[in-house]
Parts: sequence; structure tokens; C-alpha cells
Amino acid sequence: MNGWPVTEWTRLNEERQRRLQAAGSLARGRLVASKDVVALLERVIAPGDRVCLEGNNQKQADFLAQCLTQVDPAKVHDLHMVQSVLSLPSHLDVFENGIAKRLDFSFSGPQGARLAQLVADKRIEIGAIHTYLELFGRYFIDLTPRVALVAAHAADRQGNLYTGPNTEDTPAIVEATAFKGGIVIAQVNEIVDRLPRVDIPADWVNFVTHAPKPNYIEPLFTRDPAQISEVQVLMAMMAIKGIYAEYGVERLNHGIGFDTAAIELLLPTYAESLGLKGKICRHWALNPHPALIPAIESGFVESVHSFGSELGMEDYIAARADVFFTGADGSMRSNRAFSQTAGLYACDMFIGSTLQIDLAGNSSTATRDRIAGFGGAPNMGSDARGRRHASPAWLKAGREAARPGQMPRGRKLVVQMVETFREHMAPAFVDRLDAWDLAERADMPLPPVMIYGDDVSHVLTEEGIANLLLCHSAEEREQAIRGVAGYTAVGLGRDKAMVENLRDRGVIKRPEDLGIKRREATRDLLAARTVKDLVRWSGGLYDPPKRFRNW
Amino acid sequence: MNGWPVTEWTRLNEERQRRLQAAGSLARGRLVASKDVVALLERVIAPGDRVCLEGNNQKQADFLAQCLTQVDPAKVHDLHMVQSVLSLPSHLDVFENGIAKRLDFSFSGPQGARLAQLVADKRIEIGAIHTYLELFGRYFIDLTPRVALVAAHAADRQGNLYTGPNTEDTPAIVEATAFKGGIVIAQVNEIVDRLPRVDIPADWVNFVTHAPKPNYIEPLFTRDPAQISEVQVLMAMMAIKGIYAEYGVERLNHGIGFDTAAIELLLPTYAESLGLKGKICRHWALNPHPALIPAIESGFVESVHSFGSELGMEDYIAARADVFFTGADGSMRSNRAFSQTAGLYACDMFIGSTLQIDLAGNSSTATRDRIAGFGGAPNMGSDARGRRHASPAWLKAGREAARPGQMPRGRKLVVQMVETFREHMAPAFVDRLDAWDLAERADMPLPPVMIYGDDVSHVLTEEGIANLLLCHSAEEREQAIRGVAGYTAVGLGRDKAMVENLRDRGVIKRPEDLGIKRREATRDLLAARTVKDLVRWSGGLYDPPKRFRNW
Repeated sequence: MNGWPVTEWTRLNEERQRRLQAAGSLARGRLVASKDVVALLERVIAPGDRVCLEGNNQKQADFLAQCLTQVDPAKVHDLHMVQSVLSLPSHLDVFENGIAKRLDFSFSGPQGARLAQLVADKRIEIGAIHTYLELFGRYFIDLTPRVALVAAHAADRQGNLYTGPNTEDTPAIVEATAFKGGIVIAQVNEIVDRLPRVDIPADWVNFVTHAPKPNYIEPLFTRDPAQISEVQVLMAMMAIKGIYAEYGVERLNHGIGFDTAAIELLLPTYAESLGLKGKICRHWALNPHPALIPAIESGFVESVHSFGSELGMEDYIAARADVFFTGADGSMRSNRAFSQTAGLYACDMFIGSTLQIDLAGNSSTATRDRIAGFGGAPNMGSDARGRRHASPAWLKAGREAARPGQMPRGRKLVVQMVETFREHMAPAFVDRLDAWDLAERADMPLPPVMIYGDDVSHVLTEEGIANLLLCHSAEEREQAIRGVAGYTAVGLGRDKAMVENLRDRGVIKRPEDLGIKRREATRDLLAARTVKDLVRWSGGLYDPPKRFRNW
Repeated sequence: MNGWPVTEWTRLNEERQRRLQAAGSLARGRLVASKDVVALLERVIAPGDRVCLEGNNQKQADFLAQCLTQVDPAKVHDLHMVQSVLSLPSHLDVFENGIAKRLDFSFSGPQGARLAQLVADKRIEIGAIHTYLELFGRYFIDLTPRVALVAAHAADRQGNLYTGPNTEDTPAIVEATAFKGGIVIAQVNEIVDRLPRVDIPADWVNFVTHAPKPNYIEPLFTRDPAQISEVQVLMAMMAIKGIYAEYGVERLNHGIGFDTAAIELLLPTYAESLGLKGKICRHWALNPHPALIPAIESGFVESVHSFGSELGMEDYIAARADVFFTGADGSMRSNRAFSQTAGLYACDMFIGSTLQIDLAGNSSTATRDRIAGFGGAPNMGSDARGRRHASPAWLKAGREAARPGQMPRGRKLVVQMVETFREHMAPAFVDRLDAWDLAERADMPLPPVMIYGDDVSHVLTEEGIANLLLCHSAEEREQAIRGVAGYTAVGLGRDKAMVENLRDRGVIKRPEDLGIKRREATRDLLAARTVKDLVRWSGGLYDPPKRFRNW
């Protein structure tokens, strides 16, 4: 009507039908033999398609990634890859092989240096770096995948999928693809008659292949307590007494690393001795960190919802079903989308490490020669301005941040925890983030900041805690940061009188201001000092991967 | 080990088993006769349980809600209800009947006045008011339901559920409950041999009952174009030219109401005449608003992901599958959790109406005698500080908001669109929000603000647009708001010189500054002027509910 140009309206579904038919002879029902997967991809992926390859923090659709590197670039090229994590060499091989061209992602971890080189060589066009939940949001708006290549633990003969403990991103990816005319292909470790439970209904899946090897899973969240230093113990004590107890933090997320592992291992000892059980750390958005086992066994932890699982924790989780989210089959159900949502809106605190912090408190893990991405940190390390429910921790932080004339509101606690020098004596505090250089080199519209300074509430180092909420000006903020930056150039550049004044006002707190004696910060305080201790705490239920066993 | 007190660790699952056994004789497999549902609830709900009753914006588990009002309060009492929306009388009857005591929710719409009275009478303890995504996040942290009462369109005999176009909150509720030792009960409109598709796997569902009547669905997003005024046309023109075109807004959400319906209906006419097709409004997080039909038919809209569906739009959606997210069966898949995520992180703009705005730009729909809640507005109407991907609109807003010395970043556009006087000549602009009084009366820790002033980028009235990003001080901000507040007391209290200065600087823009002539703002510009016009635009595919038909 009205003479407007009319487009066709069901092209996506028609094109899906065409591709499914083209693939038809390769499949029996939904099942495709692993030897036929390269041919399958050549038939169902068209040049220029947006393809989501499931790369998670842990679980990897590694067989499908490998197959994608083997397609004929004359047939399949100019793909736009969208994926959470680039962690396998194959994830970059598809670009080197001329199959893919553009990339939107969240985290590149071990591939960060090679990624930066490929960008410099103009072999990869980066759309943007995202935080996970942001990327999932775009799957439903302007980055909807045409083809999704995912990994599940098992499938039944109808094509229902069991993702098991490492459900992770799969529901978000599959839902966006399956309901927008896309094609979903799953690699599975086994095909069974009856699944322990259905995680993804067969309706949503077009093809399933039994991969030659089980999918790769990275035990990313396992930290050996043997490697925790006494400086880290000191910092953990300050965190517990100066922040967790101070605000009464009951719901939280911990970033990955030894700093936060030390906190987890001090809950049953130091925090217990302060009478904090039941008052802090009750509800978590967290992967099943092995370092959390002693706190769980000691009754600190009421619930844990997880982004993904962790290798070796399966039996322990099943035996602690009251704490974790598990299916009727006993195995965990993780879900990165929901856990990130919980981390954003239902947690009072995010605490994590970073590589560099500038004088305004902006932090980044980007360095000149690596494009690493941020994972979940920008989401969880930001004040959720849409949050409306109150808690004592959130109200107290909000009162501290209040300015005259402003509507009262709450605030999330965002704590950046770093030693003043990281490995190779590189200072954690800098005048200017490397992110500025990277932005210039990689032609990014903004420097890739992980957490913006105005979202950070506290900076914690071995020298003390700087409470940025209490700072009234940019100058005070800078001096509060300098005041905990130790012997770095930034720390040495402090205005001593101003720093002392900030300390008098309680903006900066030293260990002694918190009643913490440095000599008490020993490894003896750790509830577990080795991986073997963790196994013992678990009653033998935790089964660490080989690389973490030295017995 | 170590002498710590050991709790039992599988109590949730054991208790679930006990309850399922207690209910056993009432069920055949998972099926329970509707006459037995009250007895079922008495057996599977225990005093003090946290119960999630599915009340959405649209779909209501009304039969289960009715049954819950009929349980014996001697057996079932002190429940903690968690639910998105309170919209049915039964939602409050459970409190009046002494069955439930505590409430955490998001939106109460038509029940707002009765809710306020029950709170004043101490019959209901309110935990907090949330935005939807925040409440979903808490389902996985500290508000996990013990029992969930949900609604689906159909079930098969195994208990798989088909939620159809109104999937809405169901996946979030069921996942949180089923995987944390909880019990899921679904009412369905029919039980069939084979579902069109599986939305919720049977594994996740404990009981299904065939309700005596189809579940209630509210056509909340239908606005009759006949009721759009010429003032609203003028405001819509200003929005399109002064904001959508100015920033190049391609990805967005519209709040509910006639103001935004007017914008939707001006896309194929006014926006088209400005050459904006393909440049604005390409991707939406939006329910399938009937008022969007002409824009879709005119080729403005590439994709729409929806929170829920809208009655009467079913056939139109199926026929426009390229635009909407639909299953292989042709019907829509909505999902409130993902669409809110998209609204937060993947959209450049939120535009919506409110009841009151104060001098700092804080807005609220709370009034003294109603506790209405906010729904999705706090989430979508807040700057997503964790967002890291750039777009031209987001970068431009960020540049406008930039302050010297700050790390450059982007900004979401959050537009509050109001006529200076709402019905009964109540001014939309006030010195002090009614939210302050409500907070006092209902003993809330903070005034219930819908959108905080510092998240608002623009205030749009029939007098003009105030761009708050460009204001350098609280005083400028106040005058910018007064400068578009018309003949309200707030508007009359303006500092005329300062307002003229803000206008010179482009902070305030009048229609004439945008080249918009008031006399051109007529209803003739609306692409559809009646519901019948919308049906015509849809080629007869849109089938409006009876109450919207006058032919």
C-alpha cells in the first residue's frame, strides 16, 4: 500500500531452508559424521556471513574451529566472526587463511599478541571489544549470527543437547541464532540414547557432530595456594577488614587471580577470627573456584551462581548442591548471561586486579603489543545505575559518594587490588595508560579502558587502601591514588602533606590504621597452602587437573 | 576436617524430593488436574517459602495465582513473593488472605494504589522495587525461588513447554528455580501430542496443569493513533529532527505511550521526507508495537527483538519473520531478560515518558498514594558504564558530555519526553518529586526515582529540547530544564537571560531553531490515524483486540 517499496519478508528463513537442503545429503536426521563437517560448513556458510564460533572462557568448540580453518576460501570468505573469547590458534588461523575478515569479541587472552600483529598487518578488522553481556546483547540487535558453531557435552539422537556444567554462553548464542533464521551446528563429545538432562532443545539445533576428541576446557580459575605470597596475604587481610567488614559485603564477585584467591583462603581463618561468618561473602556470582572450598566447608557461603564450571570441581559441586546451581542429574548448570546479569545488578562488590592504573583511577589490561580484551570486568566493575534495590553495603557506599544537592542513591563497590609493582618490576601505577598508544596503533575510537576511574570506589595495594568515594576533587583523587602507589614514580610523586591529610580523614588507610600488623600477614593464615590441602578440605571430592598435582 | 561445623549439603534436593513425593498421588506423570491444583500447592509450598508467581507485563499465570489465594493459610503462610509484575487482584489477595507476607517486585501498574494501602496497613512488607533485569539477577543470587508458578501456551505429555510468542520472563524464572532445588509448576492452555517447538524442556518442569481458561494476556503496547494529539506530533517531529537525525540513532528502545507512538508513525512520513530511511531506527529492542507497522512496511526497520509479544500481532510477525525473532514454527520468541540486556548494552537511545521531573532532571512515576514500580525504565534509561563498543551516536553524546581531564568515553542517549502539563493540568515539572513523600510514608531507604537526572541526556517538551549533556553546572542544568518547562511554575521561574544564553549556545532548541513550523505539526503527518489504518498497512495481517475496533 501507499506505494512504498516492499521488500521480501521471509528471506532469512527461505535462505536457511535452501542451505539446509544443500547440506541434506551430509546429514542423517541432524547427525553429521565428523569427516563431513568441513563440507557441511562449505554448504551452510556463505561469503560475508556473520558466524559465531563458541569460544568461552573455558569451553571451546575446538573441533568446529579447526574445521572452519579448513574450508575452501574460494567458497567461504569475508566472514564476520563474533565470539566471546579467542583463545585457540585456530581462532586466528581463520583470518590468516583468508576465510574471515572482521571480528567482534570480548577477550583474547593468550592470543592477544598475535591478534595485535594481525590487526597491524590489516589482516583483521576489529569491530569492537566488548564485555560479555554487551556482546550477548548485540547478538539480539545488530550482531545476530547467521551460523553458530557451538560445543556441548552430549546429544541424543533427536539433537537435544546436554551442555553439562560448562553451559556458559551456549544458550545465548543458540537462542539468538536459531530464532533469527540462522543455522546452529553443535559438536558433542558423545551421542547417547538418553541425556542426563536437556539444556538446549533439539528444535533449536540444526546439525550435531560427534567430535573426534572431547572439546577443550581450560581450567582458568584454578590458583595454586602455594604461589600466594605474604604480600598477598597482607592485602587480603586489608580487603577483609577494611572493605568487606567495613561495608558488610554479602553479595559479590571476585576477579580471577592470586590476590582474590588469597581472600577466599582467609575467610575461614582471619575473617572467622573477626567474627564475620554470616556477615560477609554469603552469596556469590563466581565460577567454582577451588580456592573457595575451605570457605564453603566452613559455612561462609550460602550460594554460588557460576558463569562456567572449573575442571576437577564436578564431584565436589554435585555433593554441595545446596550451594551451587545444579540440575536434577547433580551436575552444575552455569550460564554466563545470567551470572553476568547477577554480577551487575545483584552484587554489592566487584574486586579484581589489573595491569595499569592511572592518576584518575582508570585501569586497563591493554598494553602496546597485545589486544587482550576485558571479559566480564567492565560489566561487573561498573556502577549499575539502573539498580534500585538497597542493601547496607550499597547504601553506605552511596552515602560516602554523595554530593550536596544530589538525589541520594546507592553505589556499587568496585575495588582494584594491585601490588604496586607487577612482574619484571613494571609499575602498576602510571601517568598514562598504554591503552592510549594501543588506541592509536589499532585505530580505535577510544582508549580501551577496562574500568573507568569514576566507577572505582577503592584502590588497594600493599601500602594501603584509598577510598575514592570520599575524595571531593580530581586533585584529592590523584593524591589518594599516589598515596597508596608505594615506590613507583607515581607514588614517589605524592604531595606528602596532602596524603597525610587524606589519611587523617580516613580516605587513605594503612595496615596499621586498620589494626593489621604486617608481621601477622604470613602464609600460615591461608586455610589451604597447597592444592593438596584443597583436596583434603573437599574430603577428596575435588580432583585437580594433572598440571596442578605434584604428588 | 579442621573441626569446622559441617552442615548438610543436599537439603534443597532432598526437600524437593520429599515434596514431590507428597504431591505424588495428585499427578499422573507431570500432569495434575486443574481441580487438584489448590491441594498440590498446599503440598509443595511450605510456610516461609520464596515463591515466584509469573506476572509479566503481558502474560499472567492467572489460574495459578487464583489457586494460590485459595490455599489454607493455616498450611501455607508467610510466603515471600517475588514477581515482575503485580497486575491482577489475586496478586494482592494472597497478602490480604494471610498467605503471603513479603514482596519483591518490579511493576504494579493497575494495583499500585491498593498496594500502597496494604503497605500502609502493614499487610505487606516490601523488600524492594527493582527494574526487571535486576530482579532476574537476584533470582540467581539472594532471591532464588523455592517454587515457581508459570504460564505457557501448551505442554506435551512429557511436560515440555511451548511458551509461544509470550515467552517473556519464563526462561529466567524456570532456570533459577529448577536448578536450585526448586519446584516448577506450569499452567497451560492446552496439552498436545506434539508442540510446535520446545521453549522449556520437560526436565526443568515438575508439574503441568491444563487451566480452565487460557491465561490472561494484556495488550499493553497497543496505542490507538486516533488519540494522538497535534502537540504529540510536534514533539515527535522535534525528537526525529533534533535527536534521532542529529545523533544518527540506529539502535534504540521506545518507552510505552502515545508520545513514542507518534514518533513511530512519523517515520514513514516526516522522517522519510528528511531522507532518514536507513540512517535511523534500524534495530530495535521493542515489543511488537502495532504503531511500528507502517515503519516496518516502509523499510525503516531491519530487526526487532522483543521482551514480550502483543495481542493481535501474531500473523503479522509470522509474515515478517526477517524483522522479528521467530521460531521455525513461525511464531515469535520473546525473552525479557535478553531484550533488557540488549536495551541496556546494545542500544544507543532510550526515549520515554514520565510523570514528574525535578530541577535536576530526576524523574519518577511514583506518587504519594501509588507504589507503581518502574519495569524496564531504570535499566534502559541508564548509561551502561560497562559498554565498550562505539557507535557514532554514542561517541557524539560522549563528546558532548566530556569534561576536561577526563578519560574520553561514550554516552547513552536517555531522553525524557513529556508535555509540560499532564492530565488534570498536573505539571510534569516540579520542585520536589512526590517520590520523597512516598519514601517517607512507605519507609523506603531512598526516594523511588525512575531515572536519575545525571543519566538523562535530553528533556523534550512541546516548548523545546534541553540538551543536559552540554550543561556545565547544576545551575545551567536547572535553567535548561526550566527553559523547556513552559507555563508550569518551574517554567515560569526561569532566569530569562540565562535561558536565552543557553538557547544561543544550542543547549536549548525551540521548534523554530530546528526549522520546524508548528503549523505543520498536524495529524495528517501520521502514517496511520486509526487502528483501521494500521490493519490496512499490515495488509490485513494485524488483528487488533476487540476493544481497539470501532468498525
